[in-house]
Amino acid sequence: MAQKIIFDTDPGIDDAMALLFAHALPNIDMVGITTVFGNGTIEDCTRNACYLNDRFNMGATVARGAEGPLTRDPVGPTTVVHGEHGLGTIEAPADQPINIDPRSAPVYMSEMARAHPGEITLVAVGPLTNLALALEYDPEIVNYVKEVVIMGAAFGENGHRGNISPVAEANIYDDPHAADLVFTADWPVTIVGLDVTHQSFFSGDYLDKLRDGAGDVGQFIWDVSRFYLKFYSERIGVDGCHVHDPSAVAYVADPSLFITRQGPVRVVTEGPAIGMTIQKSDDQFYHHDQWSPSRAQNVCVGVENERLLQLYWDSIVSLA
Amino acid sequence: MAQKIIFDTDPGIDDAMALLFAHALPNIDMVGITTVFGNGTIEDCTRNACYLNDRFNMGATVARGAEGPLTRDPVGPTTVVHGEHGLGTIEAPADQPINIDPRSAPVYMSEMARAHPGEITLVAVGPLTNLALALEYDPEIVNYVKEVVIMGAAFGENGHRGNISPVAEANIYDDPHAADLVFTADWPVTIVGLDVTHQSFFSGDYLDKLRDGAGDVGQFIWDVSRFYLKFYSERIGVDGCHVHDPSAVAYVADPSLFITRQGPVRVVTEGPAIGMTIQKSDDQFYHHDQWSPSRAQNVCVGVENERLLQLYWDSIVSLA
Repeated sequence: MAQKIIFDTDPGIDDAMALLFAHALPNIDMVGITTVFGNGTIEDCTRNACYLNDRFNMGATVARGAEGPLTRDPVGPTTVVHGEHGLGTIEAPADQPINIDPRSAPVYMSEMARAHPGEITLVAVGPLTNLALALEYDPEIVNYVKEVVIMGAAFGENGHRGNISPVAEANIYDDPHAADLVFTADWPVTIVGLDVTHQSFFSGDYLDKLRDGAGDVGQFIWDVSRFYLKFYSERIGVDGCHVHDPSAVAYVADPSLFITRQGPVRVVTEGPAIGMTIQKSDDQFYHHDQWSPSRAQNVCVGVENERLLQLYWDSIVSLA
Repeated sequence: MAQKIIFDTDPGIDDAMALLFAHALPNIDMVGITTVFGNGTIEDCTRNACYLNDRFNMGATVARGAEGPLTRDPVGPTTVVHGEHGLGTIEAPADQPINIDPRSAPVYMSEMARAHPGEITLVAVGPLTNLALALEYDPEIVNYVKEVVIMGAAFGENGHRGNISPVAEANIYDDPHAADLVFTADWPVTIVGLDVTHQSFFSGDYLDKLRDGAGDVGQFIWDVSRFYLKFYSERIGVDGCHVHDPSAVAYVADPSLFITRQGPVRVVTEGPAIGMTIQKSDDQFYHHDQWSPSRAQNVCVGVENERLLQLYWDSIVSLA
């Protein structure tokens, strides 16, 4: 049976690539899309989500979420990476209908989790504000959600630390207080962070072939990724892009693609290291230890890149 | 010519071992000892410093320093490691004369640095409160001090992170705000932390031989270290102890014992990771970067243990 997911997202170029992946995968049933600020404003991200849902007949309920972080000063959209309105040079039409659920994203999450106990996986690839607000709105949600899978964070594995700061990944940096609440809540969380997403890569050639082999969807992925690849080329000096948000979807579809490490996770919420994520993965005793009281979570530390690329390819081509 | 140092300390068992080392080394001239809270209360640490200075005819000026941290709640003495009054089972006599300079430690540091421009090295092996207060009292001190060498911190090199918490070393944990001020000030700092002190080791056998071969001083080091070795044996399961505070003295006497890495250093001052130290040692660009505005400091990442043990041996034996 396909796994029900609610996809919490700030589209976002790689968010769009991940949405199409989740839509395509036969063992994933994307029942809802919830939106959050991040790569763009909440208005742009919500418009983009509705546009993608309509254009590719995804059939998901769309619910609008948070417009800014819980506590910290807003960082602002990452237009340098995702373009002026979040989808690179592609603009959702001005008359795009905004067909959204009357419930806010956190309320929608709570009601769906309670309606399908143990069945809903929350897949979150933006700032974790909506998930933190869902925990606040309905603390019992931890007993109804099957699992939480997030793209975000960086634990220094294989030398990968931050992207927005020397020690912080952008989704966590955008709302570190929310991330700390989500990681220390009593539900199972798997974190797909830079430790693995920097080990996987969509080359320019791979995306060219997808354009030629996957019809309208392949062409769209190629089009939407042009701005993103320009950023990678100019700022990082490579032809292609890392597989950020699609990796979280891949984990849900096939966890065997990843190696994980267990241990409680906390987030730095103030000062120069704001947004840094730290896992305690041994059982050593310390006189002062604010990790051990929380449950162990899964951090992905390894990925089989070739198999991941093949799964993405096969899924997208199946839509053509 | 011998290098003038002011030794800022919270004796402390390994502080005593380091004080005797500094006193013994022919190329070090320990002109002053400044005291700080940490391993014990400021009263105990100051009494212990006066006792050691008198008993071993060190001839240093003693100046009393801070009784607690700048901003954070006091952590309290580490009696479990250093004993009830800081020197294990050795008690400074109740009638120990407290011959201290009328100046506070920060004022003494400032006046000595100005009296000997470019000649004074501050060697600090406790919480960095006195050094931070000296920077506040006399911001120009950075132009008069030759160098700052500290024992403290942990950067995750060779897997070594915290000792008091999963990510923090005790001296930095005791006053993280002070440490951040000291590391980001415009003077040259070398940090001798757990990354190297956990690579060096005084075995029980080494200390037995020192007792037998180094007269009264050797006997004292053996006596004072009994409580410390009991802690190591019971809590860590090893016969001996790491070479913490003496390593900072060794760096001043012979920097070639250590491998260092350059880069700005910041300290986490709030939350679960309070006291964590982070160095940015590459020149990668990040949109948000609170490291790069500060000067690069030296972090010790490697040590030649055998040579360090030999230097300590030769120095202590020369006092016999």
